[in-house]
Amino acid sequence: MTNITVFGAGAWGCALALHIHKTGANVRLWARNPSARLPSGAMPRLRDHPLPADITVSDTFPVTTDLSVVVIPVQHLASVLPHLPQAPVLLCCKGIEQTTLDFPLEILARVRPDLKGAFLSGPNFAHEIAAGLPAAAVIAATQHETAQHIAEPISSPLFRLYTSTDCTGVQLGGAAKNVIAIAAGATMGAGLGENARAALITRGLAETGRLATALGGQPATLSGLAGIGDLLLTCTSPASRNYRMGLALGQGSRKEEALTTLPGVAEGVTTASALLSIARRHNVHVPITETIASFLSGSLTLAQAQDKLLSRPPGFE
Amino acid sequence: MTNITVFGAGAWGCALALHIHKTGANVRLWARNPSARLPSGAMPRLRDHPLPADITVSDTFPVTTDLSVVVIPVQHLASVLPHLPQAPVLLCCKGIEQTTLDFPLEILARVRPDLKGAFLSGPNFAHEIAAGLPAAAVIAATQHETAQHIAEPISSPLFRLYTSTDCTGVQLGGAAKNVIAIAAGATMGAGLGENARAALITRGLAETGRLATALGGQPATLSGLAGIGDLLLTCTSPASRNYRMGLALGQGSRKEEALTTLPGVAEGVTTASALLSIARRHNVHVPITETIASFLSGSLTLAQAQDKLLSRPPGFE
Repeated sequence: MTNITVFGAGAWGCALALHIHKTGANVRLWARNPSARLPSGAMPRLRDHPLPADITVSDTFPVTTDLSVVVIPVQHLASVLPHLPQAPVLLCCKGIEQTTLDFPLEILARVRPDLKGAFLSGPNFAHEIAAGLPAAAVIAATQHETAQHIAEPISSPLFRLYTSTDCTGVQLGGAAKNVIAIAAGATMGAGLGENARAALITRGLAETGRLATALGGQPATLSGLAGIGDLLLTCTSPASRNYRMGLALGQGSRKEEALTTLPGVAEGVTTASALLSIARRHNVHVPITETIASFLSGSLTLAQAQDKLLSRPPGFE
Repeated sequence: MTNITVFGAGAWGCALALHIHKTGANVRLWARNPSARLPSGAMPRLRDHPLPADITVSDTFPVTTDLSVVVIPVQHLASVLPHLPQAPVLLCCKGIEQTTLDFPLEILARVRPDLKGAFLSGPNFAHEIAAGLPAAAVIAATQHETAQHIAEPISSPLFRLYTSTDCTGVQLGGAAKNVIAIAAGATMGAGLGENARAALITRGLAETGRLATALGGQPATLSGLAGIGDLLLTCTSPASRNYRMGLALGQGSRKEEALTTLPGVAEGVTTASALLSIARRHNVHVPITETIASFLSGSLTLAQAQDKLLSRPPGFE
């Protein structure tokens, strides 16, 4: 497998293109706007990391490829998938499609049932992968062989890929962490401190675990890289967009204000309401998600949201 | 229960004394060196938070009390316990006694089998509790009633105490997190980045879970406040002594140098070798603990330790 096409030229798409290029593959990068490429060779969202000249950047969909690495925001995924060539697909976008409540692999199965798919998730900041710093992630697919087949050509000693067949747990972890990150950011923004944030992240993990169980996933997945690993990274670093969004909200910014000052997409904003709908459908109590969704929709004030996030009767853990 | 004695006037002892005082109890603080109290009324280890005048500070062991809150470093615990009055004991020190490999509740049972005991653990920075910021923690005891009885007078809406009967899991989580924090600090100190740290913390949680199971604890405890909650707090904040110790080591400081620049005790240094002995006794593979113990004992260089922390074959997560 030597010809790999990365679809999407945001920070994560560019970082993955750079990493895959280092493994020795021929890499093409599909970009909505290839002319945005800077004179340095970098794309605007990852401007400190020029792409080597032999990574071609184009807005033409290729006719063939050995692997499609799809890094399109989940709300736009369904519009790009029809144009993919016949090849296995690695989905690298976290979240839930708002209109259908589908996770990425479900969108793929719906739009392109002819393609084999896997889903990548883990604690991975794009700028660090681009810089060649070590990291690990999980590739999930229904069939273990599919996950292994897709992981093999892009795993390296510096970017270790573990495989999983718990697609539900891995995709849920990747979606929910962005909602918890907004809550964690808001906690810090409001000056409530690191103890409160740690307690909140722990409760967030518990509520995601309950939901995973209800959806047929394995709660143990949430204790792994795609669960707590990604969650703690997203909830403790200002490099996370969703965390920064929460910080701004906790400091009193309005949602629209906070959104406009962020580069890229704060996926947690749309995920919150989608996740809440899924949880209600399955009768799962998700107090943090519910609070964030209500706060983002304007039906709770910051003070009310804080109160809800902190109030929980003591009892048996 | 209105007379509560806090034994130990380090930062955590002072913060607990302040918190318990706010709940309305009469608080006495036992200090090795009460004359160290500053003119402001604060003790030196928590200098920004003066103790109210009605918290008496003394080096005389009281004859009676309703509850003993013991915040003595675990290596000195056995020397203080014989002097405690007849009253339930809440142990608030995390770690393992080096000479016996006993956890705090085991030390209590050995030295003072006449006293009922519980163990407090969770993501709790002393300076935040002292400032009255919200937090949560777990109180573990063999008997649920004991945990509840001890938690009741000191729980408040701002410091929520959950109860557990998994003494093994809660005590193990509190000990192991300091070792993982040294590894996490070293990872950041060496410039390996937040992705690598998140992967390492996740693996650290997994190895602590394996050990908990072998010791008869419940792995689920490690997904709670006394597990991942405390672990993520300790592994991501420069306010943690063990994390700072690791940071310095990762930047190339020698152990002795790193230890002398730290206020208080970096409990993880002694815990690493103790935990490794326990793990070997139970045939549990604890690669992170092993690496840190070998590095701290001088049998691995920083480069070798890094290599060991990062090398792990890809596979099924």
